[in-house]
Amino acid sequence: MKNTLGNAVTLTLFGESHKEAIGAVLDGLCPGVPVDEERIRAALEMRRPYGAISTGRREPDDFTIVSGIYEGRTTGTPLCILIPNTQQNSSDYDKTKNLVRPGHADYAALCKYHGFSDPRGGGHFSGRLTAPIVAAGAIAGGMLEQKGILLGTHIARCAGVDDRAFSNYPADLAALQSKRFATLDDAAGERMQEAIAAAAKDGDSVGGVLETAVLGVPAGVGEPWFGAVESELSAALFAIPAVKGVAFGGGFALSDLRGSAANDPFRVENGRVVTTTNHNGGVNGGITNGMPIVFSVAIKPTPSIFVPQDSVDVVSMQNATLQLSGRHDPAIVHRARAVVDAVTALVLCDLLTGRFGTDWWTA
Amino acid sequence: MKNTLGNAVTLTLFGESHKEAIGAVLDGLCPGVPVDEERIRAALEMRRPYGAISTGRREPDDFTIVSGIYEGRTTGTPLCILIPNTQQNSSDYDKTKNLVRPGHADYAALCKYHGFSDPRGGGHFSGRLTAPIVAAGAIAGGMLEQKGILLGTHIARCAGVDDRAFSNYPADLAALQSKRFATLDDAAGERMQEAIAAAAKDGDSVGGVLETAVLGVPAGVGEPWFGAVESELSAALFAIPAVKGVAFGGGFALSDLRGSAANDPFRVENGRVVTTTNHNGGVNGGITNGMPIVFSVAIKPTPSIFVPQDSVDVVSMQNATLQLSGRHDPAIVHRARAVVDAVTALVLCDLLTGRFGTDWWTA
Amino acid sequence: MKNTLGNAVTLTLFGESHKEAIGAVLDGLCPGVPVDEERIRAALEMRRPYGAISTGRREPDDFTIVSGIYEGRTTGTPLCILIPNTQQNSSDYDKTKNLVRPGHADYAALCKYHGFSDPRGGGHFSGRLTAPIVAAGAIAGGMLEQKGILLGTHIARCAGVDDRAFSNYPADLAALQSKRFATLDDAAGERMQEAIAAAAKDGDSVGGVLETAVLGVPAGVGEPWFGAVESELSAALFAIPAVKGVAFGGGFALSDLRGSAANDPFRVENGRVVTTTNHNGGVNGGITNGMPIVFSVAIKPTPSIFVPQDSVDVVSMQNATLQLSGRHDPAIVHRARAVVDAVTALVLCDLLTGRFGTDWWTA
Amino acid sequence: MKNTLGNAVTLTLFGESHKEAIGAVLDGLCPGVPVDEERIRAALEMRRPYGAISTGRREPDDFTIVSGIYEGRTTGTPLCILIPNTQQNSSDYDKTKNLVRPGHADYAALCKYHGFSDPRGGGHFSGRLTAPIVAAGAIAGGMLEQKGILLGTHIARCAGVDDRAFSNYPADLAALQSKRFATLDDAAGERMQEAIAAAAKDGDSVGGVLETAVLGVPAGVGEPWFGAVESELSAALFAIPAVKGVAFGGGFALSDLRGSAANDPFRVENGRVVTTTNHNGGVNGGITNGMPIVFSVAIKPTPSIFVPQDSVDVVSMQNATLQLSGRHDPAIVHRARAVVDAVTALVLCDLLTGRFGTDWWTA
Repeated sequence: MKNTLGNAVTLTLFGESHKEAIGAVLDGLCPGVPVDEERIRAALEMRRPYGAISTGRREPDDFTIVSGIYEGRTTGTPLCILIPNTQQNSSDYDKTKNLVRPGHADYAALCKYHGFSDPRGGGHFSGRLTAPIVAAGAIAGGMLEQKGILLGTHIARCAGVDDRAFSNYPADLAALQSKRFATLDDAAGERMQEAIAAAAKDGDSVGGVLETAVLGVPAGVGEPWFGAVESELSAALFAIPAVKGVAFGGGFALSDLRGSAANDPFRVENGRVVTTTNHNGGVNGGITNGMPIVFSVAIKPTPSIFVPQDSVDVVSMQNATLQLSGRHDPAIVHRARAVVDAVTALVLCDLLTGRFGTDWWTA
Repeated sequence: MKNTLGNAVTLTLFGESHKEAIGAVLDGLCPGVPVDEERIRAALEMRRPYGAISTGRREPDDFTIVSGIYEGRTTGTPLCILIPNTQQNSSDYDKTKNLVRPGHADYAALCKYHGFSDPRGGGHFSGRLTAPIVAAGAIAGGMLEQKGILLGTHIARCAGVDDRAFSNYPADLAALQSKRFATLDDAAGERMQEAIAAAAKDGDSVGGVLETAVLGVPAGVGEPWFGAVESELSAALFAIPAVKGVAFGGGFALSDLRGSAANDPFRVENGRVVTTTNHNGGVNGGITNGMPIVFSVAIKPTPSIFVPQDSVDVVSMQNATLQLSGRHDPAIVHRARAVVDAVTALVLCDLLTGRFGTDWWTA
Repeated sequence: MKNTLGNAVTLTLFGESHKEAIGAVLDGLCPGVPVDEERIRAALEMRRPYGAISTGRREPDDFTIVSGIYEGRTTGTPLCILIPNTQQNSSDYDKTKNLVRPGHADYAALCKYHGFSDPRGGGHFSGRLTAPIVAAGAIAGGMLEQKGILLGTHIARCAGVDDRAFSNYPADLAALQSKRFATLDDAAGERMQEAIAAAAKDGDSVGGVLETAVLGVPAGVGEPWFGAVESELSAALFAIPAVKGVAFGGGFALSDLRGSAANDPFRVENGRVVTTTNHNGGVNGGITNGMPIVFSVAIKPTPSIFVPQDSVDVVSMQNATLQLSGRHDPAIVHRARAVVDAVTALVLCDLLTGRFGTDWWTA
Repeated sequence: MKNTLGNAVTLTLFGESHKEAIGAVLDGLCPGVPVDEERIRAALEMRRPYGAISTGRREPDDFTIVSGIYEGRTTGTPLCILIPNTQQNSSDYDKTKNLVRPGHADYAALCKYHGFSDPRGGGHFSGRLTAPIVAAGAIAGGMLEQKGILLGTHIARCAGVDDRAFSNYPADLAALQSKRFATLDDAAGERMQEAIAAAAKDGDSVGGVLETAVLGVPAGVGEPWFGAVESELSAALFAIPAVKGVAFGGGFALSDLRGSAANDPFRVENGRVVTTTNHNGGVNGGITNGMPIVFSVAIKPTPSIFVPQDSVDVVSMQNATLQLSGRHDPAIVHRARAVVDAVTALVLCDLLTGRFGTDWWTA
């Protein structure tokens, strides 16, 4: 529903790129959870422009939590997270304001909002609104971690370069936590960054694929049919700007296998039922089976590029050529990773709260 | 939420494979819509087992609509669609009832429902419950069609065989309507069916990829962020059994392009703004842009196979070998197509009702 | 939302008075709950026309539960409850079908459904649709009772006659269970029935006030602000036909007291915090405080009367006099009691599931 | 759901009395609506403590709208309204912090939040959180007014003194707009204020009944059964602190009439169908009938009083006597009126958006 994610745990997003602040309201958290502001800062840092490959707007992403916390712990009532905007540079946009940008929401938004939306810097559609999502997700992720649920995302592919696959879960996830450019194989990461730099040199951009794993979610969470874990996660993931595909476990490649190869055989291991492969990505019939939840997310290349593009002046209704200037990232896949982690953590807290009640964390 | 899809137009699913009937309640339809029972029957026919490649249970799928219709038109109040179960054959399941089936929901459901779910024929998880979805979707699809919104799905890939791409929309969609095995290229369809038959001979199964196009949805429908059209559609699509991936427009392949190739340039055509390519699949920023909505759905191979599989007896907690018998489809991709069409139509009616109000159809 | 009640436990209502069946889908129940069909029958019996004071349609109210139950227990998946219509007598309505009935939904429904709603016997607005609510509520009520949560409703006032107040909770509630005309004071009940009979003789009808008490709900259930227990209960209660007022604890009379008289003083009793009065009806700040939840519901006089009434022919748009014939109850307050009990039980199961998770009943 | 009101138009509330700010996110407004900050200020003024009868905390209630507005008009994306807290005086509360206050949420909140909620000044339960509701409601009320939908609330009864009834709608509503103590009969208002002052002198408090009328809502809005207009309004009204009863039209008194007196006869007037009385308060079968929507709200006496009260020290679990000090209102009925107006306006915008779509205001 519009700008709100979740049922038992909800995140309501607000703000525009060039007004004084953006933010989100996070409701439904268990009371008594310690809120680690350092963890939030670290997550926001992972979302910020990074190194030579990012040429975009850089802001400190200071945040304030104006409600829902008392003496360092959640109260159980809504947290409002505010992040001030400090680097507005509206003049960049003025000269091209009637030209709808290919790959962006400008034209779709015009048809929906009839020209009343804030056009500066993408307005409400700005990628900047992922910052409060990341902040909220850091709180949710901290809750999960303290209950033994670990999650992490790597850049599985970028600009045609592949990272290695997950092979050793807890260690792989731990290693990713501190990486600004989150590949499992550092050499692959270097090659990806070179490819990004090459695209940037051409005034162009690249995309990529992120792969996420979540360990420790108990079996039996989720609902059949329209409340499937895949449904809940994909709905949240497709809300992230530039996401164009979501696949669980083997995903699209799974559809090329035969059933005998695709099915995950069961085995008893240390008194627990496990599967010996995980082509289904930890979910069967919409419900977790206790194996790692694994999914991939396709990120399209950043739509803001410096190459001239065919556009339309929507006031004069004439064809026009758009030449963007200003600050734009040649890739966002490495930054989107922080957003994927965040919405994943939020969805899981939502599912666990629905399943085990509003005291699930403390009980 | 659980077994209910949608906000303004809702579908609530109920039933188990081996009880007397399954069904769904469809609420929120505009009043005064003629309900064409022939169209429902035709859609159900598309979902039924087909030809030599289907060895599964065959039932007439008679349906009754016990409410919400008066003198052949919707009243505006909920329709309850009932479909009786007639071919229950519970004895097939008895001998293996403690062995959880790989690729199925058995084990996940056990953890969720603590052994109380109806185990016969998959119970509530049975693919049979897609029949009322298809019936409801046929009503929604009829509403859309009368307003100039056409949709259709082809088997883009099955068992490694590719169909040709959509190339000529209205005609391609029209051609698909009457095909039981919905490929655009009949020769490709023949090869797919041969591959399915070959897998069946081996006691095995295959999967595939479906691609759907929707024409005529106006620009400006959908919401930013968590109410994205992709979010709504993917949530519904992942509720379909065996769906493991959903991608819009160029999808995962789009993430390999550069922005200059991936962005869809705008052009004025007959006084309307259009894009000259459609890599974004008709949605930007979560909102329709007036171009065809195009997406792909990955269907994993049918999990019920006749090859012996490693399993666990969840009562004795011992490893075991599962040998399925009975009636099972070596492929469901061609049948799943009817379900994809159905949920797509339902989601679009929901979005249009939210956008244009409860009289959108009659106004 | 429309015809669906609840969040974690949902009831979706469907049907019209003169089609083949009415019913409801009840989703979100814990798995493993024994379903006592006798209890459902007993509750439906309480809703049926009773004795000389009821002249309305009498039907057996047979019900079938077509899903969600296996071996006598809930599976955790949706229950569809079907109740066939057997006593349709549509001819009664034909002659006056263009005259909107005062106090009924006819005119409001015409404006909403543009004349497409089923006009026979009130269609979807028929009080008959309370039967599936009562059936579902009986299941919910049984769940509560087995967890020590008791509820009951008496006719606090009818046709100007007052029943005595609750004075001895568990016993008072127990006594009400078996009464067809649910007063605590039998003599008051006799006088009420005489007053109903007198009104019936005049071709007229009467209303009344129901008072409900719920014992054993733990403190700490409900939400502040828009998720208040009063909000959830009142929303459900106002959905019952003829309900025009809902008040908690002292209700409207409380507004005449001073704070020193209205506040409920706290005391420690047997190591538990209790209040020595219960003017707040067991809810403070939207959240249960462990005291009995007590509320009153105002039922307007049955709108179907045999006295000539001013009406309008909505086809010719002329003033007209309406003379109803057929079968109509001179009072429904005693029957509405079963519906109030039912929605109360449903709302409480919903709140407890949200608070304690989907295994609250079995845990 | 928790702190969120509405479906198509949603208000999400956050904040605690003694943190830096409180606020709300208002989503789902049509784009292009002029936002009149003066109107918001005027509404907030109506909610502020007034004259000799209010001894409570007085704050300027400055507000900032940090999102969702561009060039003075709504953008169609969420508005975040922030109101800083400036008069925190936490020391007042310290000495009695373990004593649960009768009539307040302290004990219920303790059971729900396990002691983690912010205890200062009522925390999230503070009446102060009605300020952002009033601000949001002023925007909604402005939208309605520009479409010819007028609403207003008078103090129908306070401390045993009755105001006169509504007798001349548009004029009565207009007269109320500018009154800080909103009675139709000024003399009655004087007597009420004298009674409040008398209670204050005794260290005590009084309650009252508010009556609201809404003119101009078209017939055919609302839903049958669980989406009844009464359900939606009552759920919102019971979320207001101190509300203990809600009744539509004749309300509880209606239950004493016979049907022949209670039914509202229809008549054609100027080509429109109207009723000659309005005992049903403008709603039949949950749907508006085009007549004024009229309802009453019972407000209990303010629970904060200076009379010693029996309480419990919840840390030592000992009985105790509570003597409140600090600033407390002897009545809030006149201030609650602004909150009732606000939630009424919000619910109506929600219903109209659901009924007529997201462009209802501009279309």
